[in-house]
Amino acid sequence: MTVTPPRPNKSPLHAPSAATSPDTPGPDAVALNQALNQMRATAPLVQNITNYVAMNMMANVMLAAGASPAMVHAKAEAPEFVKIAQALTINIGTLSPRWVESMMATAEAAVSHQKPWVLDPVAVGATDYRRQVAADLLHAKPSIIRGNGSEIMALAGVQATGRGVDSADTVELATEAAETLARDHGAVVAVSGPRDYVTDGARRAWISNGHPLMPRVTALGCSLNGIIAAFTATGSDAFTSTVAAMAFYGVAGDIAGEQARGPGSFVVAFLDALMAVDGDSLALGARVTLPS
Amino acid sequence: MTVTPPRPNKSPLHAPSAATSPDTPGPDAVALNQALNQMRATAPLVQNITNYVAMNMMANVMLAAGASPAMVHAKAEAPEFVKIAQALTINIGTLSPRWVESMMATAEAAVSHQKPWVLDPVAVGATDYRRQVAADLLHAKPSIIRGNGSEIMALAGVQATGRGVDSADTVELATEAAETLARDHGAVVAVSGPRDYVTDGARRAWISNGHPLMPRVTALGCSLNGIIAAFTATGSDAFTSTVAAMAFYGVAGDIAGEQARGPGSFVVAFLDALMAVDGDSLALGARVTLPS
Amino acid sequence: MTVTPPRPNKSPLHAPSAATSPDTPGPDAVALNQALNQMRATAPLVQNITNYVAMNMMANVMLAAGASPAMVHAKAEAPEFVKIAQALTINIGTLSPRWVESMMATAEAAVSHQKPWVLDPVAVGATDYRRQVAADLLHAKPSIIRGNGSEIMALAGVQATGRGVDSADTVELATEAAETLARDHGAVVAVSGPRDYVTDGARRAWISNGHPLMPRVTALGCSLNGIIAAFTATGSDAFTSTVAAMAFYGVAGDIAGEQARGPGSFVVAFLDALMAVDGDSLALGARVTLPS
Repeated sequence: MTVTPPRPNKSPLHAPSAATSPDTPGPDAVALNQALNQMRATAPLVQNITNYVAMNMMANVMLAAGASPAMVHAKAEAPEFVKIAQALTINIGTLSPRWVESMMATAEAAVSHQKPWVLDPVAVGATDYRRQVAADLLHAKPSIIRGNGSEIMALAGVQATGRGVDSADTVELATEAAETLARDHGAVVAVSGPRDYVTDGARRAWISNGHPLMPRVTALGCSLNGIIAAFTATGSDAFTSTVAAMAFYGVAGDIAGEQARGPGSFVVAFLDALMAVDGDSLALGARVTLPS
Repeated sequence: MTVTPPRPNKSPLHAPSAATSPDTPGPDAVALNQALNQMRATAPLVQNITNYVAMNMMANVMLAAGASPAMVHAKAEAPEFVKIAQALTINIGTLSPRWVESMMATAEAAVSHQKPWVLDPVAVGATDYRRQVAADLLHAKPSIIRGNGSEIMALAGVQATGRGVDSADTVELATEAAETLARDHGAVVAVSGPRDYVTDGARRAWISNGHPLMPRVTALGCSLNGIIAAFTATGSDAFTSTVAAMAFYGVAGDIAGEQARGPGSFVVAFLDALMAVDGDSLALGARVTLPS
Repeated sequence: MTVTPPRPNKSPLHAPSAATSPDTPGPDAVALNQALNQMRATAPLVQNITNYVAMNMMANVMLAAGASPAMVHAKAEAPEFVKIAQALTINIGTLSPRWVESMMATAEAAVSHQKPWVLDPVAVGATDYRRQVAADLLHAKPSIIRGNGSEIMALAGVQATGRGVDSADTVELATEAAETLARDHGAVVAVSGPRDYVTDGARRAWISNGHPLMPRVTALGCSLNGIIAAFTATGSDAFTSTVAAMAFYGVAGDIAGEQARGPGSFVVAFLDALMAVDGDSLALGARVTLPS
């Protein structure tokens, strides 16, 4: 499922002064630079059980960035495949009973082989089926959970507004739910929006990169899961890796936004930018703030 | 399934003088303008059960145009989801028994919740399975049926030419079948081609926008269903909404065609144009004629 | 599944002097020219059972090139559909039990109706399930087998290096395995890589067109299967058709590479080039060598 309601365009939301100060406990420019270089040097193999809408875009995003995607979802092989993968992502966008069985078995295999895995609870509030599947997957101990404000609130059991499928709730509204989820499940939680929020329950970061055209292109959120997984597979800790991955994604979005004339030309420029952005341009362009 | 046989390029087929005269009973320039503005102001949530080939493109087309797509097809949730959606589309492009069950149940749910739904009988003449599924869906009372000339003729039980899967039959050959279908099933019927034809059995319209590169890009027909559904969800009546949606799509195609150097650059320019075309440019560019 | 690990970019690998000399037994410039023109004149209908990641791109590639793709995979109709198709491709990228049943039945139907079919044993070495499915399909007598070096070696039962899912093995390492496969199964075997290798067990050709950005775009290998099938459906013999199809694909890649600034702009230029390249530019640009 892809659900991204168009909204009036706003100019990019940039935090007024967002340079990471070197004395904070979060990732500084050097750490971001290293995280990208390390991911590219390894080209980690990431297994993805994702929705039909996102598969192609996600593979292209990961290839452009320098990771190795593998879309393997059948129960007959997905749990076996996770052994040779370095990380896993599971996205509940397009569900069916056979896929859900495979998701559960593969998530459990990832945990038992100590491979990090990313959960994307797409539109979790929209139907009972989604709520049940997401709750079951949450118990399979994801390393990272990424969603929009409404999804993170719904997953945390907080009443969400809107029609239940779009991100009517802002990132700012969802920070408390994110921290609760992070602490209760020992996961890094990332909330996507005009500004992104990442927390592991103790540390927090805001990332203010990205462009308003991004929600006008389908599957860019889903594809980000693969980038987070690739950084986490090769990085030092999941919090730093997630922040670095989201900053990298946003910096590529900044660059693409400058060239785009609409969502079609945005995608083209975005894929080009994912390949072109290097550690130095990431360190220079990232707008990460670490609230105390 | 996607079946669009390349043909020799022709220059765009533009009706010689196609300005809508304000005294005809069909949609005039003001109505087209309003239809687009109303759709954009509402950003209707449209549920789509469509084929694997089209899912990504359809979502991107709808997001670019300003609608909110949701691809939800599993029987466990699709009939429930239709309650929060404002319209539904069903496309039989890639079939399997489980999907067919879900299509039937969701179409029935749409009717009982009074949500308009669009049927696309892809390649209905190609196999017995398709013929059966399309006939069953037809009895579930679609609000709008959209196909190419061969598909509309096959659905109406008229002998189609060609190999049964492509649009060997012209739009012009299919107008009678379209009117019969419309009257027998109380639906608006739209026939896509170099010129598009729309009828509800009483009213008729020809739309002469669009570009010969459009059939060289996969899933543009399927994606149009989502635009028609979005216009119908927010418009006054299904006939006017369908004409407005097809004119909007064609005007975006006209603009893209001017910039394209082939099917790759056409898609980029088309998505950009779907976002850029506003009510005024639609009213100005639309070539709609209303035969008496 | 899509598995294409990024590698350091190399400059295109062009054989130093690769003009086809007219006295060799392989396809010369005239044969290449004719093969493309014949394919375009016929616009053959090619049925594809391919993975979810590749479906959209494969359809767009085939439409751009001038063929007619049809993605039909359900067991209820796929074996019936093959009767009206002119060729078939089967790709084991995303597997599930129901799809495997349909693949077997459709391959057998293709053979009994004397339609050529192309097998793509994606990541055959990665899991037991894949090995079993590929072995079963091999017994259903594909006309052409196309894969990367690792896949061809794994299919031939030769120990492959690497993590089993990427093309750690070069084309050059796989030529012996390719010839064994070709002779044992009466098939044309094509090995994709910086240089492509084609053999029917008796004849051999190297094709040195293409661009290093091609493995950074997902599904370009899968999509090539459809081009090979289209050329084979309309050509004189499978070896010549496969060489012509791969040279055509590579020449389009050469042209796109000159315009691209990254994988996003590469795709756009590649689709445009697939439509723009004609018989003369193919004959002029192809770099085919025929080792004695």
